[in-house]
Amino acid sequence: MARVRWLDKQEMAAWLAFLEASHRVLRSVERQLRDDSGLSHQQYEILVKLADVGPEGMRMTELAESLITSKSGLTYQIGQLEKRGLVTRDSCPTDVRGVTARLTEDGRSTLVGAAPGHVERVREAMIDVLDRDQLTALTDALSNVSTRLRGH
Amino acid sequence: MARVRWLDKQEMAAWLAFLEASHRVLRSVERQLRDDSGLSHQQYEILVKLADVGPEGMRMTELAESLITSKSGLTYQIGQLEKRGLVTRDSCPTDVRGVTARLTEDGRSTLVGAAPGHVERVREAMIDVLDRDQLTALTDALSNVSTRLRGH
Repeated sequence: MARVRWLDKQEMAAWLAFLEASHRVLRSVERQLRDDSGLSHQQYEILVKLADVGPEGMRMTELAESLITSKSGLTYQIGQLEKRGLVTRDSCPTDVRGVTARLTEDGRSTLVGAAPGHVERVREAMIDVLDRDQLTALTDALSNVSTRLRGH
Repeated sequence: MARVRWLDKQEMAAWLAFLEASHRVLRSVERQLRDDSGLSHQQYEILVKLADVGPEGMRMTELAESLITSKSGLTYQIGQLEKRGLVTRDSCPTDVRGVTARLTEDGRSTLVGAAPGHVERVREAMIDVLDRDQLTALTDALSNVSTRLRGH
C-alpha cells in the first residue's frame, strides 16, 4: 500500500473551514426556506429551473442533470410539488421516454414570494460576509474543485 | 417591505460555485466512506472525536457540540456504532446528567483502517486541486463565513 499523504496543518485548516462553512451555510439556507415557504432547498431549485424554461417545461431527465443541490429523490420532490399544485407533469408529445414538468401559476407565485427571503439569507450567510477579492478567490478555487468532480 | 438586493453577476457566480462544490465534495466523501468502511461521514467524525479524547471518553452533549458534519441524529448514529461494537455508552460517574461515549478497540481499528482512504478522497476532491495561495484564501474566506453563522 502506498504511503498515506496525511494533511499538513494548512491543508487540514482548509478542509475543516470548508466542511464547517458548507454544513452551516446549507443548514441555514435549508431552514430559512422550510420555515418561510415550506420548501426544501431542492424544491426551491426545481421551481427556479422550471421558471427559467417557461411554458414548454423541462424533461425530468434534463431537470435531474441540471440540479446542483441533489439529484436523488427528484421524483419524490416533484410529487410533493405537484400535490401542492406548484408543478404539473405530463408525458412529452415528441418523446415517449420523457415526462415533462411545468411550473403552474401558483408555482410561479410561490417562487416570487420565496425568492426575496432566500436571497436575504444567502447574503447574510455568505455573500455579505466577503469582500470582492474574497468572492473572486472563492469562485476561482471552488470552480476548480467542481470541475474536477464533474462526472465522478 | 425593503427593496430586495438581488445578487449581481459576480455574487451569483460565487454562490453557485460554493453550492456546487459543497454538494459535490460532501457527496463524494460520503460515498467513499460508505463504500469502503460502511460509515457515514458523521459516524467517521464521531470516531475521530472519541479517538482524540482517549479512554475517559466524552459526554454526549460535548460530542454533539463538537461535531461539524451534523448534530441531528447523533443518538441514532451512536446507537449504530454501538451495534457494530465500535463505541460503548455508559452513564458518567461524576455527573448524573451525562452519558459518556467511548471508543472500543474495534472502533480504533476501524478508524485506523478508514482514515487513509478518507484522506485520499479529501485530497482528490479538494486539497490537491488547489495551490497554497488558494488554500489560504479559501480558509480565510470560509472561516469568516462560519464565524458569522456560529450560534445562529
